[in-house]
Amino acid sequence: MKANRDNIIEEDPVFVDILKAHERIRDFVHRTPVLTSSSINTIAGASIFFKCEHLQKAGAFKARGATNAVFALPDEIAARGVATHSSGNHAAALARAASLRSIPCHIVMPSNAPPVKRSAVLSYGAEVITSGPTLQDRQATLDELIKRTGAYFVHPYNDPQVIAGQGTAAIELLEEHPELDIVLAPLGGGGLLSGTTIAVHSMNSEIKIIGTEPELADDAYRSLKSGDLQPAPPPITIADGLRTALSPRTFRILQAAQTEVLCCSEEAIVEAMRLLWTRAKLLVEASSAVPLAIVLKYPERFRNQRLGIILSGGNVDLDNLPW
Amino acid sequence: MKANRDNIIEEDPVFVDILKAHERIRDFVHRTPVLTSSSINTIAGASIFFKCEHLQKAGAFKARGATNAVFALPDEIAARGVATHSSGNHAAALARAASLRSIPCHIVMPSNAPPVKRSAVLSYGAEVITSGPTLQDRQATLDELIKRTGAYFVHPYNDPQVIAGQGTAAIELLEEHPELDIVLAPLGGGGLLSGTTIAVHSMNSEIKIIGTEPELADDAYRSLKSGDLQPAPPPITIADGLRTALSPRTFRILQAAQTEVLCCSEEAIVEAMRLLWTRAKLLVEASSAVPLAIVLKYPERFRNQRLGIILSGGNVDLDNLPW
Repeated sequence: MKANRDNIIEEDPVFVDILKAHERIRDFVHRTPVLTSSSINTIAGASIFFKCEHLQKAGAFKARGATNAVFALPDEIAARGVATHSSGNHAAALARAASLRSIPCHIVMPSNAPPVKRSAVLSYGAEVITSGPTLQDRQATLDELIKRTGAYFVHPYNDPQVIAGQGTAAIELLEEHPELDIVLAPLGGGGLLSGTTIAVHSMNSEIKIIGTEPELADDAYRSLKSGDLQPAPPPITIADGLRTALSPRTFRILQAAQTEVLCCSEEAIVEAMRLLWTRAKLLVEASSAVPLAIVLKYPERFRNQRLGIILSGGNVDLDNLPW
Repeated sequence: MKANRDNIIEEDPVFVDILKAHERIRDFVHRTPVLTSSSINTIAGASIFFKCEHLQKAGAFKARGATNAVFALPDEIAARGVATHSSGNHAAALARAASLRSIPCHIVMPSNAPPVKRSAVLSYGAEVITSGPTLQDRQATLDELIKRTGAYFVHPYNDPQVIAGQGTAAIELLEEHPELDIVLAPLGGGGLLSGTTIAVHSMNSEIKIIGTEPELADDAYRSLKSGDLQPAPPPITIADGLRTALSPRTFRILQAAQTEVLCCSEEAIVEAMRLLWTRAKLLVEASSAVPLAIVLKYPERFRNQRLGIILSGGNVDLDNLPW
């Protein structure tokens, strides 16, 4: 399929796909800064380099994957538009990417999605189709939509070009700090962690990768431990970006890499988020705080190590802060 | 005095002092990133480059001036320590700089200073001396302290080396974005704006400088308009870093440069602060939001201009947000 659909890859992405993605999206996304905080380093007893994807376009790393997927499409497929179902950062990122390429974009959102998410998508000129609240409702509405429009479905984390795009953050992190011992990233659907794993291990196989999850959404931990893909947990963790389960592809990639996953409590997430706000002045959402929460939970494990942490996003409801 | 006290300058600082400061403090402060937000640019109808001093050491540009003042002291003067009275960002910045040089530091703080400010100073190993709440109380306590210890008084904005240090942020901004039309900065005691004015006009005299003040603390506006240094206003503006009046030196520098000052309402400050948080994910304190509030207040004036804005600090009480 690869040859005759041009840039549409259906195999699992490899490092060269991430390098191509980096080139492809360069003009459309920020090269985000890598920042440090000496007071957080003191508290953690480690040397932490924060890759600030909350300062990314549309406020999250999702801009990387969505932009790569949209711009990798051959013209004739792109012309029919793109579609996804999401109530989160991927929807806004896909709408933005489609608007940059001037192609149609259709987003299926559940009827209970927050109005702010809906207006973000609308502001990029995408069409929003309201579905019922369950995952089945969303999938059925999306299937009907794709049949009707011929739009290309860009899955938020199972799509190979999305995964390749998410891996570009790690390239930039390692270009600036090749001397890292460990890279930690939040783990929800696994797109970011899969792309990060492929990129980091290709650049330096001695760097350890750790996926970090809330205890209330520890499905990836259980999937990798049991060898069976576990379903999504009830959507209750404050880290709302991490409420999804792995997809078949991200499960396969993380399993092959023997990825370690560590989990932490909700209290630890809120405490780490507050530290990032007060000490480092980094306005991150709860999902972004999970890796730091893990570092603070296991001080012996991380002491004196050089840690890269991907801060995944900064889309926060200021009227609903957890303190 | 200049010759026999080495780096202690008593004249008003000039550009070479800022260049020396930049060299002197390089290893002790962050080169902060310059960030942009396309959604804020769209709202403002201008192209804005934010110099992120809220990501500076100790959370504010004050680290630049205090570090420069401390490291410019000859050894025999430095050995007796430094002192200041302040309940704000300058106190923490001076305590940090003194700790880096391993010299004593004494901070006079009013009895009603927030505990968080006191503990920030203590965490750098400085001595805190409590005074009565009025400015006179603070000054008397400081005078007595200096007489007793021989410590060198580092004024938060009248000190020439402090002003020179504050000007280094503008050097970095213009190195990265030499094509700016206008630079806007918050205006309190005038240290940041004085250093910025000297640096920017020396690098490119065609760039316009605008000082920005809350209407509730428009003393600098009135001082420059009337030609008479006005006293500090009642300390009621939410932009608590801008509650101070100009000093004789900053008044003189800003008067000589014919600096323009624009003022805005408290509501406009809060709105701009919230925009910076939600759209740009920049966790700034209210004082930092004043320049953007001015840009949004006078859209015709700034339309299609390339604007540099210095975001002065990010020290915010998260339990006391203005929304």
